[in-house]
Amino acid sequence: MNAVLQDKYDQPAELPQVQVNGKPLKPITRTLLERRATSHFSDKPVPREYVTAILELGLQAPSGYNLQPWRFIVVQDAENRKRLQKAAMDQAKVGEAPVVIIAYAVKDAWKSQMHKIFVEGAKRGAGDEEKIPEQEKTVNDFLGNFPAATWLNRHTMIAFTTMVIAAESYGLDTAPMEGFDPAEVKEEFNLPAQAEVVALLAIGYAATPDKPYPGRLPLEETVCEERYGNPWHSEQGTQER
Amino acid sequence: MNAVLQDKYDQPAELPQVQVNGKPLKPITRTLLERRATSHFSDKPVPREYVTAILELGLQAPSGYNLQPWRFIVVQDAENRKRLQKAAMDQAKVGEAPVVIIAYAVKDAWKSQMHKIFVEGAKRGAGDEEKIPEQEKTVNDFLGNFPAATWLNRHTMIAFTTMVIAAESYGLDTAPMEGFDPAEVKEEFNLPAQAEVVALLAIGYAATPDKPYPGRLPLEETVCEERYGNPWHSEQGTQER
Repeated sequence: MNAVLQDKYDQPAELPQVQVNGKPLKPITRTLLERRATSHFSDKPVPREYVTAILELGLQAPSGYNLQPWRFIVVQDAENRKRLQKAAMDQAKVGEAPVVIIAYAVKDAWKSQMHKIFVEGAKRGAGDEEKIPEQEKTVNDFLGNFPAATWLNRHTMIAFTTMVIAAESYGLDTAPMEGFDPAEVKEEFNLPAQAEVVALLAIGYAATPDKPYPGRLPLEETVCEERYGNPWHSEQGTQER
Repeated sequence: MNAVLQDKYDQPAELPQVQVNGKPLKPITRTLLERRATSHFSDKPVPREYVTAILELGLQAPSGYNLQPWRFIVVQDAENRKRLQKAAMDQAKVGEAPVVIIAYAVKDAWKSQMHKIFVEGAKRGAGDEEKIPEQEKTVNDFLGNFPAATWLNRHTMIAFTTMVIAAESYGLDTAPMEGFDPAEVKEEFNLPAQAEVVALLAIGYAATPDKPYPGRLPLEETVCEERYGNPWHSEQGTQER
């Protein structure tokens, strides 16, 4: 089956199956508990096959109607990282990290991509070719009335977060960033006027020890059970019913 | 160290370290490649310790200034899932899945949480207590001028996506959903007027085989190198410089 489907729309055929240091991939529990936002990066480069793998894995993320509105620019050149740093509140890590990814999305790009995506899906048995016009009408009706920025931001963060987790599982350090001037980023990297810059992601190796874990709001304050105002309790049987 | 910090703001002390079927956790590569959006769920329940673990892991996600604006309601009661299904374009999976999570955020909630979060961080050495007033001013300046819906949606999707990946690594099936009437969800589950409903996540066990992989836009069409218009190439040396 794979041999037949091995084309440019298919899943990546080869991905590194160990961390960058050769150790087994971190399990998800360790990945998420050990992850801290890195403040300073060393200039040690990230092997290109790992950058590609992180991108490929991010692109496997789910999206509404499989429309994949997310787009990325990978910045590795030192001069370009300096330009990006200037557009990102002069955060040192942007200039330090060997890889910085600009996550963005382009308003209405889904309109020109939708047909191709649906035809490819149908070819693979994930949709019915005859129903594509109907499906396109559904999407046009749904997204035509949906706030574009909300939809683009939600979706781009799915692929973005997937990349963070993939990079950390590979034993790399990351710093997701929301501090930047979107207009400046767009200008510096020639993004189209319709682009919505969503987030930046620095990837590399921490140059200094991580800051201590800052704590998290407890489950009881952020998660409810069945209805607003009824806190989730971890143990079975103790919760109000 | 852990013994000292073991309080309600600390990381979860115990998490399942195997899949629900007892097998080792899926590595991130398998997790992301095997994940498909599940169309129909069986009624087999998800053990409560796994639901708690998925929530706890989601809450470990990074957020700007550690403000964690995401909130969740876990819906397991059959009647409540039916009410949610009605508010979610009558999608059958909402009524079928044993666990459905409503992801939302409340506008301006960060204002009342910020001080507590910064004090806790400083206590743990992740910030300087004396600088908290200054830090609060920075946040007020930054978020006061930021479109609230954009910020809330971005952040909530980080924790949401983390939950999807954690659930899939535990061998569970998931269906992220964007099709719902936010006003109806808010009314049915008594959410405050300031709430922004972001997404729904069904978790359980697939009742039918997954749909085939629908394909993804190739890396060359979604990722650029250094600047807009210069496609990323997986192999070193073949890209334009």
